[in-house]
Amino acid sequence: MFVVMQAQATEEHVRAVCQKIESLGLRSHISAGTQRFGIAVIGEIGALDPAFFDELPGVQEVLLISKRYKLVSREVKPENTVIHFPGSQATIGGSELGIIAGPCAVESAEQVFGLAECIAGLGVRFFRAGAFKPRTSPYSFQGLGLEGLRLLAEVRRRFGLLIVTEAINEASLDLVEQYADVIQIGARNMQNYSLLKRAGQARKPVLLKRGLSATLEEFLLAAEYVMNEGNHQVILCERGIRTFVDHSRNTLDLSIVPAIQRESHLPIMVDPSHGTGKRNKVIPLSRAAVAVGCDGLMLEVHDNPEQARSDGAQSIFPWQLEELIRQVRPIAEVLDRTVASPAETRGATPLHATAARAAGSAAERDDEPASA
Amino acid sequence: MFVVMQAQATEEHVRAVCQKIESLGLRSHISAGTQRFGIAVIGEIGALDPAFFDELPGVQEVLLISKRYKLVSREVKPENTVIHFPGSQATIGGSELGIIAGPCAVESAEQVFGLAECIAGLGVRFFRAGAFKPRTSPYSFQGLGLEGLRLLAEVRRRFGLLIVTEAINEASLDLVEQYADVIQIGARNMQNYSLLKRAGQARKPVLLKRGLSATLEEFLLAAEYVMNEGNHQVILCERGIRTFVDHSRNTLDLSIVPAIQRESHLPIMVDPSHGTGKRNKVIPLSRAAVAVGCDGLMLEVHDNPEQARSDGAQSIFPWQLEELIRQVRPIAEVLDRTVASPAETRGATPLHATAARAAGSAAERDDEPASA
Amino acid sequence: MFVVMQAQATEEHVRAVCQKIESLGLRSHISAGTQRFGIAVIGEIGALDPAFFDELPGVQEVLLISKRYKLVSREVKPENTVIHFPGSQATIGGSELGIIAGPCAVESAEQVFGLAECIAGLGVRFFRAGAFKPRTSPYSFQGLGLEGLRLLAEVRRRFGLLIVTEAINEASLDLVEQYADVIQIGARNMQNYSLLKRAGQARKPVLLKRGLSATLEEFLLAAEYVMNEGNHQVILCERGIRTFVDHSRNTLDLSIVPAIQRESHLPIMVDPSHGTGKRNKVIPLSRAAVAVGCDGLMLEVHDNPEQARSDGAQSIFPWQLEELIRQVRPIAEVLDRTVASPAETRGATPLHATAARAAGSAAERDDEPASA
Amino acid sequence: MFVVMQAQATEEHVRAVCQKIESLGLRSHISAGTQRFGIAVIGEIGALDPAFFDELPGVQEVLLISKRYKLVSREVKPENTVIHFPGSQATIGGSELGIIAGPCAVESAEQVFGLAECIAGLGVRFFRAGAFKPRTSPYSFQGLGLEGLRLLAEVRRRFGLLIVTEAINEASLDLVEQYADVIQIGARNMQNYSLLKRAGQARKPVLLKRGLSATLEEFLLAAEYVMNEGNHQVILCERGIRTFVDHSRNTLDLSIVPAIQRESHLPIMVDPSHGTGKRNKVIPLSRAAVAVGCDGLMLEVHDNPEQARSDGAQSIFPWQLEELIRQVRPIAEVLDRTVASPAETRGATPLHATAARAAGSAAERDDEPASA
Repeated sequence: MFVVMQAQATEEHVRAVCQKIESLGLRSHISAGTQRFGIAVIGEIGALDPAFFDELPGVQEVLLISKRYKLVSREVKPENTVIHFPGSQATIGGSELGIIAGPCAVESAEQVFGLAECIAGLGVRFFRAGAFKPRTSPYSFQGLGLEGLRLLAEVRRRFGLLIVTEAINEASLDLVEQYADVIQIGARNMQNYSLLKRAGQARKPVLLKRGLSATLEEFLLAAEYVMNEGNHQVILCERGIRTFVDHSRNTLDLSIVPAIQRESHLPIMVDPSHGTGKRNKVIPLSRAAVAVGCDGLMLEVHDNPEQARSDGAQSIFPWQLEELIRQVRPIAEVLDRTVASPAETRGATPLHATAARAAGSAAERDDEPASA
Repeated sequence: MFVVMQAQATEEHVRAVCQKIESLGLRSHISAGTQRFGIAVIGEIGALDPAFFDELPGVQEVLLISKRYKLVSREVKPENTVIHFPGSQATIGGSELGIIAGPCAVESAEQVFGLAECIAGLGVRFFRAGAFKPRTSPYSFQGLGLEGLRLLAEVRRRFGLLIVTEAINEASLDLVEQYADVIQIGARNMQNYSLLKRAGQARKPVLLKRGLSATLEEFLLAAEYVMNEGNHQVILCERGIRTFVDHSRNTLDLSIVPAIQRESHLPIMVDPSHGTGKRNKVIPLSRAAVAVGCDGLMLEVHDNPEQARSDGAQSIFPWQLEELIRQVRPIAEVLDRTVASPAETRGATPLHATAARAAGSAAERDDEPASA
Repeated sequence: MFVVMQAQATEEHVRAVCQKIESLGLRSHISAGTQRFGIAVIGEIGALDPAFFDELPGVQEVLLISKRYKLVSREVKPENTVIHFPGSQATIGGSELGIIAGPCAVESAEQVFGLAECIAGLGVRFFRAGAFKPRTSPYSFQGLGLEGLRLLAEVRRRFGLLIVTEAINEASLDLVEQYADVIQIGARNMQNYSLLKRAGQARKPVLLKRGLSATLEEFLLAAEYVMNEGNHQVILCERGIRTFVDHSRNTLDLSIVPAIQRESHLPIMVDPSHGTGKRNKVIPLSRAAVAVGCDGLMLEVHDNPEQARSDGAQSIFPWQLEELIRQVRPIAEVLDRTVASPAETRGATPLHATAARAAGSAAERDDEPASA
Repeated sequence: MFVVMQAQATEEHVRAVCQKIESLGLRSHISAGTQRFGIAVIGEIGALDPAFFDELPGVQEVLLISKRYKLVSREVKPENTVIHFPGSQATIGGSELGIIAGPCAVESAEQVFGLAECIAGLGVRFFRAGAFKPRTSPYSFQGLGLEGLRLLAEVRRRFGLLIVTEAINEASLDLVEQYADVIQIGARNMQNYSLLKRAGQARKPVLLKRGLSATLEEFLLAAEYVMNEGNHQVILCERGIRTFVDHSRNTLDLSIVPAIQRESHLPIMVDPSHGTGKRNKVIPLSRAAVAVGCDGLMLEVHDNPEQARSDGAQSIFPWQLEELIRQVRPIAEVLDRTVASPAETRGATPLHATAARAAGSAAERDDEPASA
């Protein structure tokens, strides 16, 4: 249920509606978009009568939202959500395509610094690499943990890149929240509700990957878990679903992009690396993802994929990333979107500048979390 | 097994190899591409010794093809197959993107003529409409049959459009072969081997749609059935697979496009209408299909989808087709492909001219098959 | 729509209803079950008013059948369909479990006679073996054709087994109809509507296998195609669906058995050989299939699976078939079903006797079709 | 890698092998089955040379285990794992079929006590009910939490039933470990590796449900995570996979039961309630699951399913549970398994007696955890 307020409604009107909602044992969430201003009623609504609110002063109309999700819904917030990053021109969900690139996992300082330099040099604004790796086998490499996060913080300081990295449980989320700019929740944790709730209490944007067999509704309800805790900065990411197909590791479901865009105001990215599992398909599917209208790409890049400790077969070489960006730029233009070029990001580098200013002290304590 | 001949091999050399093959109870197929010239050995090869051929004069090398398919394979024919149409500049698999548009089924003369006029006016070269409809229920509309084919022949005559229409069994294939320019085999018949063999004996190109749960290998082996009968003009078409997903009718598997292109020289088109089943997703997925690198699009268009006797929900309006073409053109350019514009097809219209010349007699007998 | 007639309705009443139906451009099908007697209205009913029939003499009520299938439906025919075989005590859908066993393909006289002797000796009443094989690759063994059918006719004559064999197109169906007792339509042809219609005109029972990605509704509509042509002897067969699972060739969907039994009166068998694709899983899944309540099992048996020309990996040995029957018998009893024992089939052997009587002349012309 | 020791190997020999393993930076796990005694080498083995161990005294042979799982594997432990419960005759994986029954969620004292009385009266030994519910929507009922666990402890005390209940994160696992007899990990958490590791440190058996799109290898690797932490009491549970099928909520994959039994020594149960999602299919699929050879059934039972706060549609009535047990008993006998009858469990009730003895003090503090 969503109580749309009149344009001229006062703060008092709003407060009265919220009190009415809370008096019924429910919660209220004020949604202040540019096109519609109102209050979402959250909780088990059941047979709640719209008449409870209809006659309150300042109320324009009461929408009965039939979908099981509310906060993620375009019914509640018609305009697109754009994620901003303090001290940076980067956005996700805005007119510039978000490109996140980097190795599957942080393996060493040399590896991440080398790759980060290449990636920043191509105008990419986001760096990805896992410090905590959820691995199918307990005997596989599980990530460098805190040491990895510190290396990522140093990547941001040195190259002005925003950091995207995965949290695999509540303990690692505490750390990731400190060190990263975007907290990633992986596909296997898409319905780990405790982790989603914890992410909902974080102050950083959350990138939520679709589960391998998640329906659109389940995907949006997972995002609703995060938003329901108060964190409205959620980025969705399609990364392929599990089907009978054997020519690719997963089947990239690009039709979910327009489907999400109809239902939800949240940005939706695509990960063609996991979505195909094969290096030779990453560029074609990246073109397709941009063409279908996604808000950005998440890409695995490695300078020596044969030796990568995980996901080597689906990592592209840095020179392929350059080629990929060259190819998707004109496609993005068809959709009125831009792709940052090296000049722009270099020209602007507000983050880099900020980082440089902080470098005096940071030089001695390069292992400090970014938000410290 | 594939016997690569030396560049300077004579006809006699070739004949000797073919005789050797046939003496072993197998069949030979001469493959004369520009990059490689040789003879495919067809049949149950089993443990056949390459040495049988190695020492024959004119033989350069003997390739052991490990794949179960041969004639469709790039190992046998490295360069792309381009389908040409006599009396037309249209191609499929060439540098121009092939666009096939039209209603799901032929419903009436008014319907097809009206739509054909719109479609031809947009520069599209191929018209699709079913005269024989394979329907899930025996009580659904099954198509106008021969009457439908005659209307399609008239569409070609009047508007210079090439006709793509489906054959659902051997009897209808006899008719479709006479009236159409491309014989379509539907997804449900992808493993109807009798029909594939009959299509392999036809003199017209065959458009083969992927089955709902076909693997890449099964898809290529179905094409191999057609080619093995002597018809090498096969066009593949991805049209969505069946998965658990419920936000689209099928899941369009765009990653099969680069996968097919690695394995096979045959052109591969995409049908976003069946692939999504929803009008609002046809344009985004058409953009994606062109961006991934397909050779063409197959689209359902209807001027009154609510009243369509089949597939109304996934048919776009003619004005949406215009918008679609406008959007995919710059994407095609990124892949060095063109999209015919109205001017070009009007300017050229060799087929239209031909049809016009034939119109004198055709006027009296407009129900005659095109190839008559 | 289904017009239920009063118990005391006369032939004239029935004729009047049928005429009314036909006057509306529709077809009528009289359904005379023991629990309900009436007339199915077949064709595109659309918004047809039940009042057309309600007031006719002899009419009890008019059921609006919402399902897309009618003749297969329990709404139209509440009691189970039992398939009988002239001159034999065998049934499918009755209280005795139907067991169909034999090799994937007819390979030679020695092979089929040897296996048939074993199989008949175990009390099994139905022998299966393909003379026409639909194969994924054009280069795989395609069956012995007519020669295979003649060997199967000889199997019936010698061992008193009823013959189940596949028709892969209309031409082979003409032959199979002559030689076999049950005409099999394979999974890949489940939506080959021309073949279904031809099978609907046959005078022999049709065993229809579920397609690899067919829903329950599509499966029943395929059976409706057969019944709609007048052949009401349809046996359904679950044989596994295509999923992401890699520990078995297909995923046997046993839950479709009770689902079919709710919706339809037709018998439903299970094929654990194709359903699992692995010899070591055939017995466990056969037990499960009988336990879930299916009407019979279809099993691939080979005495030398390693040398089988097809499906060797999923064929059980004859001694395993004996073990399988031993294990499923007590499970069948839980469901009030019997499994024929060697004694019974030997004691009874009416077919064998018939065949023996016919043997005088048949000895000279053992290649004649059984129904000749 | 698995180092098989000679029958006469001494403790010193074993210690020497373990030290050798640890000196290589790996971990050792001693596996002392009745058929094979040896030491599993755990960690990233890579190209480790078997010769490291071959020549040590007491070593019989070194097995190179190609599978990615070790501790769960039959190669390491050929005989079946049987889970015992202190103070109870109940087992899982032994000759008696394990039956776990109860409501989806603990809703109230009346509900659980009423159902527990019925269930215990049928001879069932395990009671299931969720206190922590992982729900797709944040607005759905999430369970009673600690209050629910206390009610479950009281169910054990009053009715002598062993308690199976789900932990959804590390915090709830701390509580569940105290109150329950079996810790359940739900399908959505099958790859929540932190939770698996925590479960691996628990002293209670773990029931691990298969993820909706988990392969057999992923399922066993999830169990390997638990075992790798030291908890070898793992019970696997098939509960249906996600497919295109729409006649059941999930597709119960019974072929995984024999597949697991070939690969692993762990018990494997089946949950036909989630596996079908429909009340009318629970009994047929329970029969099938027992027939295929599973070690037990997990069933949702509710006395008023229409009012259940979750999963009502798939919950059977108590009288249906009685009927189910009556039907599966003779099937279990075919597989040499027994099903406990009311008399046996009443006659024996060692747990009940124990609980009764403890009741003096427990009466005052009925909210105490069972293990206190």
